[in-house]
Amino acid sequence: VVPPPDTVHFLSDYGIRDEFVGVVHATLHRLAPHVRVIDLTHGVRPFDVRGAGLLLARSVTHLGPGVVLGVVDPGVGSARRGVIVEVREHGGPRWFVGPDNGLLAGAVEVCGGAEQVVELPASPSAESDGIEARWGGPVTFDGRDVFAPAVAELCRGASPADLGLPVDPDSLMRLPAPVSERGILGDGRQCVRAEVVWVDQFGNVKTSVVVDEILATSLPLGTTVEVAVDLAVEPAGEPPVELATGPVQARAVRVFADLADGELGVMADADGHLAIAAAERSAALQLDLGVGDLIELSW
Amino acid sequence: VVPPPDTVHFLSDYGIRDEFVGVVHATLHRLAPHVRVIDLTHGVRPFDVRGAGLLLARSVTHLGPGVVLGVVDPGVGSARRGVIVEVREHGGPRWFVGPDNGLLAGAVEVCGGAEQVVELPASPSAESDGIEARWGGPVTFDGRDVFAPAVAELCRGASPADLGLPVDPDSLMRLPAPVSERGILGDGRQCVRAEVVWVDQFGNVKTSVVVDEILATSLPLGTTVEVAVDLAVEPAGEPPVELATGPVQARAVRVFADLADGELGVMADADGHLAIAAAERSAALQLDLGVGDLIELSW
Amino acid sequence: VVPPPDTVHFLSDYGIRDEFVGVVHATLHRLAPHVRVIDLTHGVRPFDVRGAGLLLARSVTHLGPGVVLGVVDPGVGSARRGVIVEVREHGGPRWFVGPDNGLLAGAVEVCGGAEQVVELPASPSAESDGIEARWGGPVTFDGRDVFAPAVAELCRGASPADLGLPVDPDSLMRLPAPVSERGILGDGRQCVRAEVVWVDQFGNVKTSVVVDEILATSLPLGTTVEVAVDLAVEPAGEPPVELATGPVQARAVRVFADLADGELGVMADADGHLAIAAAERSAALQLDLGVGDLIELSW
Repeated sequence: VVPPPDTVHFLSDYGIRDEFVGVVHATLHRLAPHVRVIDLTHGVRPFDVRGAGLLLARSVTHLGPGVVLGVVDPGVGSARRGVIVEVREHGGPRWFVGPDNGLLAGAVEVCGGAEQVVELPASPSAESDGIEARWGGPVTFDGRDVFAPAVAELCRGASPADLGLPVDPDSLMRLPAPVSERGILGDGRQCVRAEVVWVDQFGNVKTSVVVDEILATSLPLGTTVEVAVDLAVEPAGEPPVELATGPVQARAVRVFADLADGELGVMADADGHLAIAAAERSAALQLDLGVGDLIELSW
Repeated sequence: VVPPPDTVHFLSDYGIRDEFVGVVHATLHRLAPHVRVIDLTHGVRPFDVRGAGLLLARSVTHLGPGVVLGVVDPGVGSARRGVIVEVREHGGPRWFVGPDNGLLAGAVEVCGGAEQVVELPASPSAESDGIEARWGGPVTFDGRDVFAPAVAELCRGASPADLGLPVDPDSLMRLPAPVSERGILGDGRQCVRAEVVWVDQFGNVKTSVVVDEILATSLPLGTTVEVAVDLAVEPAGEPPVELATGPVQARAVRVFADLADGELGVMADADGHLAIAAAERSAALQLDLGVGDLIELSW
Repeated sequence: VVPPPDTVHFLSDYGIRDEFVGVVHATLHRLAPHVRVIDLTHGVRPFDVRGAGLLLARSVTHLGPGVVLGVVDPGVGSARRGVIVEVREHGGPRWFVGPDNGLLAGAVEVCGGAEQVVELPASPSAESDGIEARWGGPVTFDGRDVFAPAVAELCRGASPADLGLPVDPDSLMRLPAPVSERGILGDGRQCVRAEVVWVDQFGNVKTSVVVDEILATSLPLGTTVEVAVDLAVEPAGEPPVELATGPVQARAVRVFADLADGELGVMADADGHLAIAAAERSAALQLDLGVGDLIELSW
């Protein structure tokens, strides 16, 4: 018998200006006082389901067992489902709770895939009367009214099947993976086409490219890499036709500390992604890069 | 016998850049290690006592039993009192601790009113000697030096009467309620005059108007509502004479998801207030609205 | 026998936008579930080791026993050491863990100096093979990969000597103290030359000057003080030759509440430092002051 979880990892785009995060914490504590809540971050850009999903997928192996509560939910109040996902591998989180909009699927995959998925009933207020009869009830705050209560029930020993109706695990919504292609240019230079998947608060630019042995072998430390920014998006396989800014140069280095002042570097970051960074400055500002931008690295 | 509280809900305008929140947490933990502290938010605009008071009043029913520590305190060091308020209804917080400047009164009212109020003595440093004899001591950090120690004492079993002198519960400072009026315009259209009481990080504009059955009945879903912004403030009962910007149109909808791209909506938000929102964009930016602005909705 | 610590005070420049703080919390909780983590702040300006060190030194007396985990670490991946410092006086934190770059030394001094210092081994990933053999491994995230595991071990009963090799406590890196000089000007006026060491979120300007009895005596409340900003840095003992902005006037007051609207005040702040403040406005904006700026106060 698995003991009920006592840890909740909480990720959202609620920000820290409003009472949203605090009210969800208070609700969890009121309903399940023994639970520890760890805030993964609430600084995801508002409505950025994809960025949050990639963040969760790269963080999840560092989380201990328990629940992940993820709420980045532009579709709150729409027909999108709320779900509980139980995963197959249990070294880390065992359950994911949140909207079924692509936020959870990447991390679920990292945890071995979904063992079972249940759909949560919509907030009770949508079914009551009074104002509800006319306006369908006030907007629900699903983090507070639907997801936190479901998490609290899990932490009090309920099983997912007690909390919703089973649905096909394969029906869990997935988002397209970010662009990440390797190839050889016409002049024989090697290249990767990549998408910016995150810019951290230091201005480091995380790309979609995972640094594996093949890449590490083909791109020796010290290599000068050309970074071309803002590629026009082309049909797969076609070369880009226009570059918004001319290419800049970066050097393949092991760590930030290997960079000279003013120099740009490419490196494997702490999650094993190819990243572009500068020494104690923002590479994102210098290159005018943001999440979703396409870049081409060649050498 | 009521057991001493073990949960503190902490609200302030301290922000997250400085060590203020952390030092209050550390002080509470040092003095009462068993206590759980839940941060409601520290993102209230600096010195915005009124906004914080409205936030607390709308959040308090979601908080479990324990203490609310609220510190938004432009008058620190002045003659304003520090207080502990014990409330009559005890499903939620039982005690409120903070400055008596209007911050607490709205939430106290929601909790059935004050059962007893005690005034906290000023910080001890104001009475000691040395520098204090000349400069009156350094500025006290009342969150750290006065309020957190009082909260810790409550959590260790002290009663309010152990910590300060009783004062008349009716003397608790109240702030004027925000403007919220309904009427009929000369042309027969219905209208509400309202104040913007909060803008959340998504740019949703919360007004002072509570959506009750009468309003829901008179404003069917789908109705087109004119929103006029920046009304000149007039004596109560007088019509506004000038509008800084022409009216814009919004549609009465149930949830964000019912809005088309670019459309403005009015809806009952998650606290039952009439709110103005846009689809995945900031309605506040679009209408140039901020807290304290007056608006008129008519249909 | 000292019981192992159960409280960690965590300070960094990680900010709140990314998952960094959350992943360190999750790692600590995974490795040492009984531990309470108190966030001192993560809002230190990126890479501002000195500002963070001063913050920690002025906060440390308010922290209870346990560990301080401090990570402001522009040199991550370089030859700078990671250390555990055990301090002599034990009313507050007993151990400090972080990079040996000057961040910890001031607080260690406040706690009576270092009893022992051990150097932590570099992250294991730097020694493994595969990509590591070529690129030296991905950048380590030392907060997650080196410091949090060391803190968790301390909290599970390990001694510093179990976790690293002893080094000379006197070798702990110290940063130069901020400028703070007193003198008499040619015209007989008294003056202090000071450095701005922090600007809080309210815009209050904390200087390097500690308000002691001598200063309090020589500067009676009510005195008008001239504040000259942006002094050219001169060799010690030389008078400044140029002022970027003309002097402005401030009044020596006890608390914020003593200031009239629009007035600037100098006061002893809550840490006993001489500070410049305005009534419910930002003195830093008004004077265009930031951390590291030099100012001269004279009266």
